[in-house]
Amino acid sequence: MGVTGRVTAFDEATAVRRLAGGRYEAHPDPRFALVAPGGAAPPAINGGVLIATVLRAVLDGSPLPHPVATSAHFLRVARAAPAEVRVTWLKAGRTAATARAALVQDGEPVLEATVTTGTVPGGGTVPGGAPARAAGDGRAAGGGEAAGAGLCWTGAPPALPPPEECVELGPWPGTVAADGTAGYAAQVRTLFDPAVAGWRHGRPAGRPEMRGWFGLREERDPDALTLALAVDGLPPVVFGLGATGWAPTVELTMHMRRVPAPGLLRVAAWGRHVGGGWFDEEAEVWDSAGHLVAQSRQIARVGRGRLRTGADVTARS
Amino acid sequence: MGVTGRVTAFDEATAVRRLAGGRYEAHPDPRFALVAPGGAAPPAINGGVLIATVLRAVLDGSPLPHPVATSAHFLRVARAAPAEVRVTWLKAGRTAATARAALVQDGEPVLEATVTTGTVPGGGTVPGGAPARAAGDGRAAGGGEAAGAGLCWTGAPPALPPPEECVELGPWPGTVAADGTAGYAAQVRTLFDPAVAGWRHGRPAGRPEMRGWFGLREERDPDALTLALAVDGLPPVVFGLGATGWAPTVELTMHMRRVPAPGLLRVAAWGRHVGGGWFDEEAEVWDSAGHLVAQSRQIARVGRGRLRTGADVTARS
Repeated sequence: MGVTGRVTAFDEATAVRRLAGGRYEAHPDPRFALVAPGGAAPPAINGGVLIATVLRAVLDGSPLPHPVATSAHFLRVARAAPAEVRVTWLKAGRTAATARAALVQDGEPVLEATVTTGTVPGGGTVPGGAPARAAGDGRAAGGGEAAGAGLCWTGAPPALPPPEECVELGPWPGTVAADGTAGYAAQVRTLFDPAVAGWRHGRPAGRPEMRGWFGLREERDPDALTLALAVDGLPPVVFGLGATGWAPTVELTMHMRRVPAPGLLRVAAWGRHVGGGWFDEEAEVWDSAGHLVAQSRQIARVGRGRLRTGADVTARS
Repeated sequence: MGVTGRVTAFDEATAVRRLAGGRYEAHPDPRFALVAPGGAAPPAINGGVLIATVLRAVLDGSPLPHPVATSAHFLRVARAAPAEVRVTWLKAGRTAATARAALVQDGEPVLEATVTTGTVPGGGTVPGGAPARAAGDGRAAGGGEAAGAGLCWTGAPPALPPPEECVELGPWPGTVAADGTAGYAAQVRTLFDPAVAGWRHGRPAGRPEMRGWFGLREERDPDALTLALAVDGLPPVVFGLGATGWAPTVELTMHMRRVPAPGLLRVAAWGRHVGGGWFDEEAEVWDSAGHLVAQSRQIARVGRGRLRTGADVTARS
């Protein structure tokens, strides 16, 4: 599925095989495991990879090319074991089509998603099949129906030092098994803004912010599927407040705004409120050509949540 | 359902009657209509009222009190006609329970929602049934499991002049029928920040921002249901860029963060990117005690969307 045609571990981990009746076979992959510190519990699978898996099944049957709005509620811990994606189409309109999709293991929903597909600009074609404007032209609106509106506006991109001034993040707490092998974090390349990397050495910045350049370690152009990985790809923003340990996502919604250009993605994530055991995390993903390509907001649990890992939580305010 | 016990038009419009098998009878109400300029098409019903209606049905069967995460995809235009809410519970956990809920008219889904309920701080009780801390103490974390985490942090609230320095918004384009009667906008009281009100007189601020104090015209304390109204309660942020006309929401996710204190709500909404016919709109709702009580993000269509109203769209960049 990659633009380069390579089959990466990510593509293998998110592959689905079509069965009958809107059902797809899937195989949550231990290479994208989140591992409990101490290894006391079976590893969970990274949520972004699960969303990407569900999106493959949805896009397989979608009349429109892009997952404009993907809402995912995480109900149970996904394990590295066979799963099924069940897709039900609710509407197929001209500008938007909507499906429900569930990732199911052992007969129970692990992830429940609603996906509205549509067409976003970029990626060599614009809506309506008209020739693409040059990549990187910045403010190109889509064509087709949208051209009638023609309104274009973008806020300022997040500040991020160039990659050579960032620090390679490597594995972080929750991604290293007792035997030292790394799961999810070994699959991604994260060049972190030093200004928000102090938590790595016990000196959190005191703000719920994470920023860095993000990509797979294997060569693969970004697309809708890796955007799903990127929006939840950095460590939880509460690490910036001194929290460590699991921060299980309860709900995450991603909006795809544009087909990303090749190259590393810029990801900025921040939270607005931590309290009552909950925190929000917003993320923006910008591509190498300087376009905002995806946005997300999630709500997650601080500290121990429903990942029954036995992991200890150290949350300091 | 209001804290004051009054039955307002909002409470009547969002009322549901339990039937068998997770089904609820509902009556989308013309008092919350969005009316096409010129009145060429049957009015649509405000999306926030529809979400509140769905939430009533979900909360009726929820083991946990608050709609922490509500993801709603809007598939079709809701009409002022009988409807049914169909609720399916997917999980009932200790900290989170998840249901799917569809608002159906004429056998077709109008709004498809997934709701994860839980417990948020405020409102006289904290999780676990412990006595409440005083309203307005600002940084009170919930008790129960969350108390173990104890992490509290909140970003700066949006700047908004006091109500007496704001302008009463009154009806706006899309809320006034050809005969001059107002729908949705006549039900809500919106005291607008003058800095972002210029679009009312053909002088848009040039930024996709809306800010104001918000409440029902009838006396009623805010709660989870009116938060659903508030997060989509102001005019579309693209009006600040000179757009007028319909801006149909395609997907909206709301996170409830705290039970709101009585009084007017402060709502700030903004967008980050308009392009390809789509725009995002984020909203924060703060209560009179200075707490962040709800957040949302939606993605919507600029100009004419799937509301087949015949309304003309004037979008200027």
